[in-house]
Amino acid sequence: MVTDPFKPAKRVAGQRQDVCSATSAPDFVLDAARDALSRVECNQYSPTKGRPRLKKALADAYNPFWSYPLDPDKNVTITTGANEGMLSAFMGFVEPGDEVIVFEPFFDQYISNIEMPGGKIVYVPLHPPKDGATKTTSAGDWKLDIKELEAAITDKTRMLVLNSPHNPIGKVFTKEELQAIGDLCVKHNIIILSDEVYDRLYYVPFTRISNLSPEIAKLTITVGSGGKNFYCTGWRVGWLIGPENLIKYVSAAHTRICFSSVSPLQEATAVAFEQADAHDFWNQSKKEMQGKVKRFNQIWDELGLPYSDPEGGYFVLANLANVKLPEDYEFPPHVASRPRDFKLSWFLIKELGIAAIPPTEFFTEKNAHLVEDWLRFAVCKNDDVLDEAKERLRGLKQYIH
Amino acid sequence: MVTDPFKPAKRVAGQRQDVCSATSAPDFVLDAARDALSRVECNQYSPTKGRPRLKKALADAYNPFWSYPLDPDKNVTITTGANEGMLSAFMGFVEPGDEVIVFEPFFDQYISNIEMPGGKIVYVPLHPPKDGATKTTSAGDWKLDIKELEAAITDKTRMLVLNSPHNPIGKVFTKEELQAIGDLCVKHNIIILSDEVYDRLYYVPFTRISNLSPEIAKLTITVGSGGKNFYCTGWRVGWLIGPENLIKYVSAAHTRICFSSVSPLQEATAVAFEQADAHDFWNQSKKEMQGKVKRFNQIWDELGLPYSDPEGGYFVLANLANVKLPEDYEFPPHVASRPRDFKLSWFLIKELGIAAIPPTEFFTEKNAHLVEDWLRFAVCKNDDVLDEAKERLRGLKQYIH
Repeated sequence: MVTDPFKPAKRVAGQRQDVCSATSAPDFVLDAARDALSRVECNQYSPTKGRPRLKKALADAYNPFWSYPLDPDKNVTITTGANEGMLSAFMGFVEPGDEVIVFEPFFDQYISNIEMPGGKIVYVPLHPPKDGATKTTSAGDWKLDIKELEAAITDKTRMLVLNSPHNPIGKVFTKEELQAIGDLCVKHNIIILSDEVYDRLYYVPFTRISNLSPEIAKLTITVGSGGKNFYCTGWRVGWLIGPENLIKYVSAAHTRICFSSVSPLQEATAVAFEQADAHDFWNQSKKEMQGKVKRFNQIWDELGLPYSDPEGGYFVLANLANVKLPEDYEFPPHVASRPRDFKLSWFLIKELGIAAIPPTEFFTEKNAHLVEDWLRFAVCKNDDVLDEAKERLRGLKQYIH
Repeated sequence: MVTDPFKPAKRVAGQRQDVCSATSAPDFVLDAARDALSRVECNQYSPTKGRPRLKKALADAYNPFWSYPLDPDKNVTITTGANEGMLSAFMGFVEPGDEVIVFEPFFDQYISNIEMPGGKIVYVPLHPPKDGATKTTSAGDWKLDIKELEAAITDKTRMLVLNSPHNPIGKVFTKEELQAIGDLCVKHNIIILSDEVYDRLYYVPFTRISNLSPEIAKLTITVGSGGKNFYCTGWRVGWLIGPENLIKYVSAAHTRICFSSVSPLQEATAVAFEQADAHDFWNQSKKEMQGKVKRFNQIWDELGLPYSDPEGGYFVLANLANVKLPEDYEFPPHVASRPRDFKLSWFLIKELGIAAIPPTEFFTEKNAHLVEDWLRFAVCKNDDVLDEAKERLRGLKQYIH
């Protein structure tokens, strides 16, 4: 007899925040979804590993960028968004007590995904640029100390999570950085889970760790997202690409978690990949997003506040060390008890009507101090929304010292 | 260092079968999905607990059938299909070593869903009618021995899984049966996970266990499925309804598994519930499916083979004890090594072109013998497909003794 039937399992104590985005999917993708809805079989269960058309479209789309030929049935598996794909990978390989290395800052969903199968997270920080509070720097200046990474590896290390282009930093890892990481993983037999969901939005050369050597490729599972690629995060279509002897266990885990993924939007994502080049979608998408980054960051130059210029993705970290919050400003207890970035975030919402994410959320308590003067802004918005945001941010002037 | 990085976690050893269905969703539901795709916000992340419109539509739709008033924000949470909803419930409450009672036959996905958080499954059989091999019986004649259930309860029993209308039997549990089960759960503080995904397809009075008493309601989480209700199993929209202090942990687990569920099809499912009564959809759907059951079962009457007449859902169990397979018929090794129902299934596919599921798949090895003369047929097909199937099944005549 359980004394308190309402006591939850430990793994679900606490809550996390919702996120949102607001750029719209292109018409050729939405049309494909409408078409799919008209076909009976596109509304019924798909094969658990994904619809054949989508697996083929992905293999065709990624083959030119890949170091080994992609077989749609062996090297590609479809998941319910990248998130559930990563959970499937952890569920496929992590036994209780196994260790998984995660860089800080991290996308917070990684943590619960690793803890679910009983994995232990080992954190290795990415260090912010030392002069990030005094001048604008590149997101590439956030650096991994490879010796810190090597020191974090133990005989229980099972997997390493990589994210490039990186959320929230916007860093695109260089070939040399990836080679060093990959070499360590090969030396210690560590599976690399490479989250590349922003893989079409890079503004400096982009290297995929899987391509660096056959030895690294053998250990690498790459994560992709239709929702991120085509601006429809609510579609929940993701995938994993990798060697057959890794992918088959991820597929097995996915089957046990979600059984299969959403059929009509898988079909639409297939069509989206088939037609993307003809619409010059990838180039335009990248150019447009890079334009938004520039457009938005003008406000920091104008205000004289330094920021970390992203090398990829659609997030900007601005450093607000020089913003002096009014001494008598009253924060509610749940904000007052948190690091300074929470107070900055609260102040911007309440006083300027601007929502930004406090980046200490992406750090453990130990390393949170590294980023308590920064805030993360998302620029994946319509230009008029960005312009309005800039106008509101001008209200910060009076608080800058 | 892990010696073999390619060794999967134990939980994903082995593979399971795909399933499929083929009735189509009604136009008013498909139209709602097309409309949703045209709205930008319907393509972006939904709140992790589900879109407000869908939660409200479900609360409104289920309130007339519920013993306590349903608050959309407290008593309803949206999941990525009923399957991931059930996984979320197990993840929310089951700690390693906890026991979960499952009746045999069971929907096979339950098993891996319980094993994922480290739960131990305790099986209690539903006994087939003793004269099921000699005469047509009712699915209601499959019986639970309440003393067997009570004997299966230990101090580690955390949850019990119920399924009514039942897959694959087609049994609708009676009020008296549910009262006996519910009383035991109240006595032993066991959470009831009631899988009611076929809740609109019942051909005898249907009782929801949650409604039997406030004490039972406090322990009951009810599972529903838009895919089953509206014949679009590929949409992956499900939900759980129950008391706030249970639902909140299921929501928390869901957030950690899938983050959020597919947005445009949540919106469409909301509209589907809002408009279902105006289209007389529930009545027509039930009438149509009951008609298909009758239409299909004529073939068993004609052949003189007994079957278990379903009280709900769209599956029929036929008893083929009197079908004598040719003695020299050659089965491949993976079939020859399985119980007789696998051989019957293979024979029907190869010789008649008819697919049926061997029900020993839904049993543990210990109890599989109970059903080795039965096969499960799905009648959720167009009438012309059913008629063609009946014509092909006439080919069985020569093998009946």
